[in-house]
Amino acid sequence: MTSRRFRLIAPPTTPFHSDGALNLDAVEPMAQLLLDTSVDGVFVAGSTGEGQSLSTDERMKSAERWIEVAAGTDLEVIVQVGHNSLTDAVALAAHAQRIGADSIAASSPCYFKPARVEELIDFLAPVAAAAPDIPFYFYEIPPLTQVALPMVEFLTKAKPQMPNLVGLKYSNIDLMQMQQCVRMNDGEFEVLFGSDQQLLAAVALGACGAVGSTYNFAAPLYRSMLAAFDRGDHATARELQAKSVEIVAIMARYSFLSACKTLLTELGIENGSVRAPLRNLTSEQRDELLADLHEAGVFELQKELDCQSVEPSPADAS
Amino acid sequence: MTSRRFRLIAPPTTPFHSDGALNLDAVEPMAQLLLDTSVDGVFVAGSTGEGQSLSTDERMKSAERWIEVAAGTDLEVIVQVGHNSLTDAVALAAHAQRIGADSIAASSPCYFKPARVEELIDFLAPVAAAAPDIPFYFYEIPPLTQVALPMVEFLTKAKPQMPNLVGLKYSNIDLMQMQQCVRMNDGEFEVLFGSDQQLLAAVALGACGAVGSTYNFAAPLYRSMLAAFDRGDHATARELQAKSVEIVAIMARYSFLSACKTLLTELGIENGSVRAPLRNLTSEQRDELLADLHEAGVFELQKELDCQSVEPSPADAS
Amino acid sequence: MTSRRFRLIAPPTTPFHSDGALNLDAVEPMAQLLLDTSVDGVFVAGSTGEGQSLSTDERMKSAERWIEVAAGTDLEVIVQVGHNSLTDAVALAAHAQRIGADSIAASSPCYFKPARVEELIDFLAPVAAAAPDIPFYFYEIPPLTQVALPMVEFLTKAKPQMPNLVGLKYSNIDLMQMQQCVRMNDGEFEVLFGSDQQLLAAVALGACGAVGSTYNFAAPLYRSMLAAFDRGDHATARELQAKSVEIVAIMARYSFLSACKTLLTELGIENGSVRAPLRNLTSEQRDELLADLHEAGVFELQKELDCQSVEPSPADAS
Amino acid sequence: MTSRRFRLIAPPTTPFHSDGALNLDAVEPMAQLLLDTSVDGVFVAGSTGEGQSLSTDERMKSAERWIEVAAGTDLEVIVQVGHNSLTDAVALAAHAQRIGADSIAASSPCYFKPARVEELIDFLAPVAAAAPDIPFYFYEIPPLTQVALPMVEFLTKAKPQMPNLVGLKYSNIDLMQMQQCVRMNDGEFEVLFGSDQQLLAAVALGACGAVGSTYNFAAPLYRSMLAAFDRGDHATARELQAKSVEIVAIMARYSFLSACKTLLTELGIENGSVRAPLRNLTSEQRDELLADLHEAGVFELQKELDCQSVEPSPADAS
Repeated sequence: MTSRRFRLIAPPTTPFHSDGALNLDAVEPMAQLLLDTSVDGVFVAGSTGEGQSLSTDERMKSAERWIEVAAGTDLEVIVQVGHNSLTDAVALAAHAQRIGADSIAASSPCYFKPARVEELIDFLAPVAAAAPDIPFYFYEIPPLTQVALPMVEFLTKAKPQMPNLVGLKYSNIDLMQMQQCVRMNDGEFEVLFGSDQQLLAAVALGACGAVGSTYNFAAPLYRSMLAAFDRGDHATARELQAKSVEIVAIMARYSFLSACKTLLTELGIENGSVRAPLRNLTSEQRDELLADLHEAGVFELQKELDCQSVEPSPADAS
Repeated sequence: MTSRRFRLIAPPTTPFHSDGALNLDAVEPMAQLLLDTSVDGVFVAGSTGEGQSLSTDERMKSAERWIEVAAGTDLEVIVQVGHNSLTDAVALAAHAQRIGADSIAASSPCYFKPARVEELIDFLAPVAAAAPDIPFYFYEIPPLTQVALPMVEFLTKAKPQMPNLVGLKYSNIDLMQMQQCVRMNDGEFEVLFGSDQQLLAAVALGACGAVGSTYNFAAPLYRSMLAAFDRGDHATARELQAKSVEIVAIMARYSFLSACKTLLTELGIENGSVRAPLRNLTSEQRDELLADLHEAGVFELQKELDCQSVEPSPADAS
Repeated sequence: MTSRRFRLIAPPTTPFHSDGALNLDAVEPMAQLLLDTSVDGVFVAGSTGEGQSLSTDERMKSAERWIEVAAGTDLEVIVQVGHNSLTDAVALAAHAQRIGADSIAASSPCYFKPARVEELIDFLAPVAAAAPDIPFYFYEIPPLTQVALPMVEFLTKAKPQMPNLVGLKYSNIDLMQMQQCVRMNDGEFEVLFGSDQQLLAAVALGACGAVGSTYNFAAPLYRSMLAAFDRGDHATARELQAKSVEIVAIMARYSFLSACKTLLTELGIENGSVRAPLRNLTSEQRDELLADLHEAGVFELQKELDCQSVEPSPADAS
Repeated sequence: MTSRRFRLIAPPTTPFHSDGALNLDAVEPMAQLLLDTSVDGVFVAGSTGEGQSLSTDERMKSAERWIEVAAGTDLEVIVQVGHNSLTDAVALAAHAQRIGADSIAASSPCYFKPARVEELIDFLAPVAAAAPDIPFYFYEIPPLTQVALPMVEFLTKAKPQMPNLVGLKYSNIDLMQMQQCVRMNDGEFEVLFGSDQQLLAAVALGACGAVGSTYNFAAPLYRSMLAAFDRGDHATARELQAKSVEIVAIMARYSFLSACKTLLTELGIENGSVRAPLRNLTSEQRDELLADLHEAGVFELQKELDCQSVEPSPADAS
């Protein structure tokens, strides 16, 4: 399709000990799983990483550990620094550059919500300026921030004030706007798509990369899908995307992020609980979830895929 | 891609005389334009047709004229019968079957909003039963009805009570749910996708047809796009979809349906105004719109396309 | 408090026969109940009357019957003519004036939603002009129409184009805006408040009347509350308002309008079912509802109240 | 009305120096203004105080200064400790108790939003437990958090797990629910109402106190209003509430919190700017705002009011 490899970036979970403290020992095996499954990078302290539920100190420690572990590997490290407090967001950005992050991203504040693009830029410009030597992505995620400003206008007006702005982490299912962003100025901006279960759609429309929670454990599925699409085998690509939908639907039936941590723990990376206000699965729900995920073949998706072997289960009425 | 031809269905506008009365003389030239541009059918009294702004009598007259004009052609006629009043919706459904419609569709009532799938079915079942010999589509359009119920659950629970239910007219950009509906029971249900500017995404994910306002005047663009996609020429398909985005963005800058009628009038089909509460363009806006549309090449899209000739204009910050 | 009597207006339900047809025989006993309980008028085909679920013909017949029955009594008749179709709304307005309605009201269309005050006025002006000799109220009800435009701006801009505009039927809990409307031009506009369970608040802030479903069966409760407030007995006023809250909370636990019809049937006015998409109570729910309403003393509220006798039950965690 | 004095609590702004750092010198004159104007307490780091825009360290320093300044006065100090991160919220709560706060309050997290009452309690219980010796209020503010859970259910289920829960800071205009909360268990819970421009309504319905931004500079207006209401002079109470509406409408025409800081600076308490993403007034807007506020008589509201002297300006079409 394109000469450049499609970037698949995983937003790692943040494992906790049973007392709720950070479990940084889990970072190394997590990184190994990602490297083993063809993931290109990590998006640290995103939504999947419960970034907004961590203290600033916890976020810094987590970023430091990821950068240590990624050093000498091919894993790119993007540190997400969005925060309701500009003071914290700026501190996180400066820290990320200092410790060697490859780039940073920041979501909009969500208590006081920018009502216009200019207000969003007023918030983000000092954040980007605190890490001036590395690229900055705006993390657009309206379902969580309840902020949905027009992105073409944002990119146009922000770029002159934020020279290191390189694109969007786009967790938004408006694919008309996505196309507009992808095409601006002959592709000046990168759009990293955030909805795994619709990735094929975004690829058809020109996205160049993706960040999504299921790339933590199922990247080979998507690599196969991308390859099928590139060779024009649309039927296979569609089948593989349907498998992704099936997995996401199972996990969404439970508490999604708790399901994610439960699955990773089952894969050998001790994740512990999610932090409130997210809800943890009961042990019964955990057993049911794992049974469902086994039946869906999720535990086969960490190795090289033989495309023929993946066949979605019949859709169920979730 | 598939052996069956992808169905492109246009939702015709409802032309009015200057006194606000229906102008049924415009139906014949409208049908001719659609036939000349490879459109497979019409979706009468949908949103583009301002169906909900018409009286029940006007809707019946409009449906009658479309069926007369389509007789003996290949145009399929779907009559949209959604209404806040069940009495009217049932009357429209019975009338549609009586006059020879190929199928009917109905949207959810939107003043009193069904809160659960069961309530939606309670409303729709008598409507479908009033036209028992022809297929029924549920017209899912949350942005206008503010009703967004889970469609897999709807299809599952509705089918036993509505034997003529065949699928969805899906004006919803949730493509995860779309995939689930497309795949239910090995493709039991048709999903006619409703967002022209994202059609390529829906095609990649398995939609079998589409209903959308720009197919009224630009179907050849989409036929070229579908052909490019089928032969694996993703770059061209993407360019053609981008042209669609460009056109939709221009029209959306103005009052969308008024822009649509203005364009069709310019193409020789006298459309008149839109009815309140929709807003008509001022004459200045009309001139600007037409200039923008000319520059975007919209008036070249009614004939067979030479793919090479379509090149999106640079995206603008709408 | 004021020299003018506070207007309590009931929006009657629309009774149906078991086959779903209008039951106009119920209008006379309904009117008698209202007259017996100090109600000043009726708001025909409002939300409680399932106006939007009726056909235009049914709405006309219902209005005719109410005007016949109210003739020679002190009951004022306001006919609600809101409709998604301007054609129907205009026809209903002209009909209402012709048959002798005291005034009309119309809600915003809700499929196509006016995005600005001007678009709302474009829709409403021809409706008001179709009944030029009687007063017009805008029926502001954002929870159902999803249209929430600024009302001070609306009244200011609409009045010059709608000379018979006299005020609002205000089903909106924004009491800052309500105060602004009440005070415009020294009280030029009437504001009829639409949230029974907060009536005391609106009265404290200057509303001059109210339209609400519980006035169909519990007006004496509110008369007592208004009297207590007027004489400065705030504690009693508050107790009586709390009783209203208790009743509304009970009915809202079930399907509200179905509960309303069930209660009126129990009071001797055969109401039948609600029409889809509203949900009817099961017979078990009906029994529970009636038991709850009996316990709350609702069946004592149709006669002159002895204030001492009304004591709210302990609030429950609905 | 009641024997207990109605509590008026001001949520102070957080003044900044021109470099954006906290200006704690402004706390003392701010406290003096509040004491001079009959305010009973302060709600530190609420929305008006831009609490969520401050770092945890800034919040602690601000709370410390307020408690120092309030020591030996009658000012009650409530410290708002809501945060997206449970870690920070718990730290702020423990700190507040340690430094001598009278009570704490916490809003819901708003990035990850509790979907059920249980999830909200899971988050709040450890926060309340970190300050076990002082009362805890839940700060209910759906317009900012986008979390609107049923409060009767919350109070019922939370109390057993949060023994120091005493009530709500209720920035919600649903006055039916407010009544239910006020009346629970014979008034077990305090409801501090948060919408200044509707305070009279809440008082009529039984609120026992209020927290709101205009009490920072106009408490005597509300004291006069409360007195008028208590003596049954509803017309005067309504006039005074209308003056409050007029002031709020002026400030809302500009950026509300920036207007608030501009006004306080004009009253002699150097406030500086608001922090992004809030928008600061331009100098032109500042001049217009101050002219509007002068005309509305806002600068007369800091002294004892002679009720006769307050007359709302004619309402304008904001």
